[in-house]
Amino acid sequence: MKTMGLQRLMLVAPQRFPDPEATARASGASDLLDAATVCSSLDEALQGTVFAIALSARARDLGPEPAQARQAALDLLARAETGEVALVFGNETSGLSNAELQRCHAAVTIPANLDYSSLNLGAAVQILAYELRMAAFDAAPPRPQLATPSLSDPATHEEIEGFYGHLERLMIRTGFHDPARPKRLLPKLRRLFGRAQLEKDEVNILRGIVAAAEMAAEGRTPGQAGGTRGAADKSNN
Amino acid sequence: MKTMGLQRLMLVAPQRFPDPEATARASGASDLLDAATVCSSLDEALQGTVFAIALSARARDLGPEPAQARQAALDLLARAETGEVALVFGNETSGLSNAELQRCHAAVTIPANLDYSSLNLGAAVQILAYELRMAAFDAAPPRPQLATPSLSDPATHEEIEGFYGHLERLMIRTGFHDPARPKRLLPKLRRLFGRAQLEKDEVNILRGIVAAAEMAAEGRTPGQAGGTRGAADKSNN
Repeated sequence: MKTMGLQRLMLVAPQRFPDPEATARASGASDLLDAATVCSSLDEALQGTVFAIALSARARDLGPEPAQARQAALDLLARAETGEVALVFGNETSGLSNAELQRCHAAVTIPANLDYSSLNLGAAVQILAYELRMAAFDAAPPRPQLATPSLSDPATHEEIEGFYGHLERLMIRTGFHDPARPKRLLPKLRRLFGRAQLEKDEVNILRGIVAAAEMAAEGRTPGQAGGTRGAADKSNN
Repeated sequence: MKTMGLQRLMLVAPQRFPDPEATARASGASDLLDAATVCSSLDEALQGTVFAIALSARARDLGPEPAQARQAALDLLARAETGEVALVFGNETSGLSNAELQRCHAAVTIPANLDYSSLNLGAAVQILAYELRMAAFDAAPPRPQLATPSLSDPATHEEIEGFYGHLERLMIRTGFHDPARPKRLLPKLRRLFGRAQLEKDEVNILRGIVAAAEMAAEGRTPGQAGGTRGAADKSNN
């Protein structure tokens, strides 16, 4: 990280930290370790970010389609102009779970020998950090074409998770979703909305739709006295 | 090396070889170590090559002008069409001497943080091997093995329009949307779902969520006798 100019390290539920072996191996870069933030969950680590890319070593049924490292670095840099971004790595042994991958907006793979494709964690971090540096300082990198110009700021991780939680409650309330037999409904919805890369304004609209449906399911309408939460479209434009 | 598809390793006057620590660290790639050639001098290692590029961490008074890793990888590949080529690395502690550097045809540097530029040997080899792989396969990249194919066919225009219509009815029914004062709610939703490029299966899920919310708003549940349309998640996977 430090050789490539990256500084902010977040550690999610590390087994041991600080650890003398880690400090010894960080020779000359222990300032990064000293300044690392320890989080208890991936959600906590991603709080406030607007875009997160996860390293994915293998194909997944669900979850974002992986881009190659070079393209992913360009995408991450472009998003960094709108807010905080993150690169997410799993641990050395097992990588990221599907649930963790689905909390990120995009996935990245490192092109490798198909017969021996598993880079160790340090090597993978090195390559992605290098591609980020190249993307940042290489002469006039091509700007990734974002599908549509954004109307409002990108939604943060916790805003999007809030929407998923709210939608899930509605689906349970209306009998569409049975938590005891979840099938793969929630991952599919994450995959869909993940592709869209929601904006703040859009999350507000979606939550408004869900809140209004919830109140209607409870026999209330937004105008009724019993309504504790307003849920009509209040966006101004 | 092996993750990037490189196989031939020449070791110049190693202090210890084979070495149990090296073998242990090579997990899964010990075949490369087993097949490594031990040479007594750099000249011997370079015998038969037509082009050699040396990693140079710092500016030298003499010797070739260093190219950046990306360019050097392209150069090395181009030369490889005319004969054997080599990438030359110094040891972890002191790198290459001026005399060794001058035995090579070109030098390469890895762009790095000016305040902390010294990559360890393994990291430097990883980046150069990666750039060689990218240079070799970038022009005609192998089919992305990891890109998850769509789960179902893309939804047709009329399927998507059907969903928009259904969602609009729900939003009116629940009081979230007032057709007399439409603002820009529907165009915003079209923009959101348009970015996601909905698949058939996803449209079915979305319509199921909407149908269940509609029935709940009417005081029915999917299981009730009055329900004319089923609206539980029936997707099979």
